Amino acid sequence: MRVGIDVGGTTIKAGLVNEEGMILRQSAIETKVGRDYRLIIADMVAQIEDLLVVGGCKREALKSIGIGIPGLADYKTGNVIYCTNLLWTDIPLGSTLQAHFNMPVFLENDATVAGLAESVRGSTKGFENSVFLTLGTGIGSGIIIGGRPYSGSHSAGSELGHMIVGENFYTCNCGNNGCLETFASATAIIKYAVHRIEKDGIRSSILDKAAGKTENINAKAIFDAAKEGDSLGLETVNRMVKYLAIGIINIMNILDPDIIAIGGGVSKAGDYLTGLLKEQVQKMQFTCNVKYGDIVLAELGNEAGIIGAAFLG
Amino acid sequence: MRVGIDVGGTTIKAGLVNEEGMILRQSAIETKVGRDYRLIIADMVAQIEDLLVVGGCKREALKSIGIGIPGLADYKTGNVIYCTNLLWTDIPLGSTLQAHFNMPVFLENDATVAGLAESVRGSTKGFENSVFLTLGTGIGSGIIIGGRPYSGSHSAGSELGHMIVGENFYTCNCGNNGCLETFASATAIIKYAVHRIEKDGIRSSILDKAAGKTENINAKAIFDAAKEGDSLGLETVNRMVKYLAIGIINIMNILDPDIIAIGGGVSKAGDYLTGLLKEQVQKMQFTCNVKYGDIVLAELGNEAGIIGAAFLG
Repeated sequence: MRVGIDVGGTTIKAGLVNEEGMILRQSAIETKVGRDYRLIIADMVAQIEDLLVVGGCKREALKSIGIGIPGLADYKTGNVIYCTNLLWTDIPLGSTLQAHFNMPVFLENDATVAGLAESVRGSTKGFENSVFLTLGTGIGSGIIIGGRPYSGSHSAGSELGHMIVGENFYTCNCGNNGCLETFASATAIIKYAVHRIEKDGIRSSILDKAAGKTENINAKAIFDAAKEGDSLGLETVNRMVKYLAIGIINIMNILDPDIIAIGGGVSKAGDYLTGLLKEQVQKMQFTCNVKYGDIVLAELGNEAGIIGAAFLG
Repeated sequence: MRVGIDVGGTTIKAGLVNEEGMILRQSAIETKVGRDYRLIIADMVAQIEDLLVVGGCKREALKSIGIGIPGLADYKTGNVIYCTNLLWTDIPLGSTLQAHFNMPVFLENDATVAGLAESVRGSTKGFENSVFLTLGTGIGSGIIIGGRPYSGSHSAGSELGHMIVGENFYTCNCGNNGCLETFASATAIIKYAVHRIEKDGIRSSILDKAAGKTENINAKAIFDAAKEGDSLGLETVNRMVKYLAIGIINIMNILDPDIIAIGGGVSKAGDYLTGLLKEQVQKMQFTCNVKYGDIVLAELGNEAGIIGAAFLG
C-alpha cells in the first residue's frame, strides 16, 4: 500500500493507493496558505494518520509516501525548493514527514506526478518513455524515462511550458518571451482572442458565447467558435496548434518518446484538438524513416495527483 | 579492450581503446561512398582484424565493438536507419559485424558518440547527466542521462540542432523553419553575414578578412571581426549568442543537465563565446533558487569519435 498526496494552494488531497494504482480511500483538507509551514505539515501528518486508520492500513504495510507540489522539489533531499502558490521557499517537507513516519518520502512537481500517474494506470501505461503535457492556466509537464520520472540534475527540468518556441506579443511570467505556455495554454489563447477583439476590433462569435464581455472568454468558447467556423476562433486555434506542434516536434527531436499525452482543461477539446495537432506534427517530422510516438489524450483527470504521488516511491 | 569506429563520408577511422578511454592503436581507410554497402562493411571487417593483430589484442580480450555514424542508427537492432552522407537507408551494419566477430556491436549517431566520449574522458567526465553540442556545418548533439547515451525510443531523439527556437530568413535542410542550427552553426552565421552584406549592402571587415569574396567568409573571420569591434561582426555573433542561449535555456528547462559542453569548429572562438553565452543564459534562467549546470568547452576534438564509439558497449 502507498500514500499519495496532492498539495494545492486551496486543498491538500491524500489517498491510500494499491499496487494497481487504484485509490482505496481519500481525504481532503484545506491548505490555508499563509500559515507557518510547520502548521501545514502538522495538518498533513494528521491527515495521513487518519487515512491509515480509516483505510485499515498498518504502518508496516505502507511502502512509501509521495507528494506532488505545484513548484520545484528536490527529489534528492525531499525538500521544497520553491512553490509560488504556497509562498514556500526551501521548506523541509519531505525530511519532516520522513522523520515522523520513519519511512521513505518522495517529492516531485505536480505535473511530473500526473505524468507518472498516466504511465502507471492511464494513457501512457506500458510505455518506457513518455511525455505528458497539461494545458491549463499554464503548461505543466512530466517526462518519464525508463518508466521513472525524470526532472534533471537539479529538479529544474521537465518545464516544457517554458521551452521558447517563437516570439510573442506578451512576455511570460518567467520573464522570457516566446515560452510554449504563452502560445498554447488556456491563458494564451484567451489573451490572443481578447487582443484581437480589443486591439484590432475583430467581430467574433467568441464574444457572443461570453455574453459580450471579453473577461468571460474561456478556452471552451474559443474552441466552440472554431468548430462552428468562426474566423477568429479558427485563427486562434490554428495559431495555438502551430506552436503546440512546434513544441511537440521539439520533444520528438530531443526526447523521442514512445507516446505523448495531452491533459488539462484545454484537452477537453478532445479529438478535434489532437486531430489538428497530429496533422501538423506529421508534416514537420524530421524523417519518414521513423515511426514517431503517437499523440493521445490523457485519461486520469483529477485523480492523477494522488496516484502519481503514490508511485514516486 | 574495446574497438571504436568513426564512420565518415570520406574516411572510416578505427581505434583500439583501453578502459581509461585511451586510444592505443588506430587506423584509417577510405569510405569510397557509392559502392555496394557489403563492400564497405567487408573493408571494415578487414580494418578491425588488422587493428587487433597490430595491437596484439586477442578476440577474447575484446569487450565490444562500437560504431558512430553520421545519421540515425537503431541501437536496438544495430542497423543504420539512414545516413545521408553514405547514401545508406536501412543497412544491417551492426548485425553483420556481430555475426562475423561473434560479439556485441553497438551503433549510435556520431554526435551522441562524441558526447559519450566527453563524459568518459573529457569535459563532462564524472557527471551523471550532460549535454554536448557540436557547432559546425550543422549542429549535432549528444544527451547523456545516468552516464549512458540517450537517443529516445526510436533512436530519433538527441537532435538538438533541429529544436525550433524562432523564425529565420531561410529554411533548414530538414524542411522546417527556425531550427537552432539555422541560427547557431557555422553555416548559419556565414549565411547571416553574407545576407547582410549582399542584400543590405553592409560594409564590414569580415569581407576584408575573406579577400573581398563572400564565398570565402568563414566563422573565424566573423568572430575575429567581432573581437575587433566590427559592427556586422558583433551583430552576427550577438544574434548567434541570442539563439544559442535560447537553445541552452530550453535544454536547462527540459533536461536540466549537470553540465553542457560546446564543441565543433565554432567552439574555437573559445572563452569569448562561452563568456557571452553564460552572461545571456544566466539572465534567462527560470529561477535563481537553482544552480544550473555550467557551460564549458569540449576537450577531445577529433579523437572523440573513436573513444565514444568504443564506450557504447
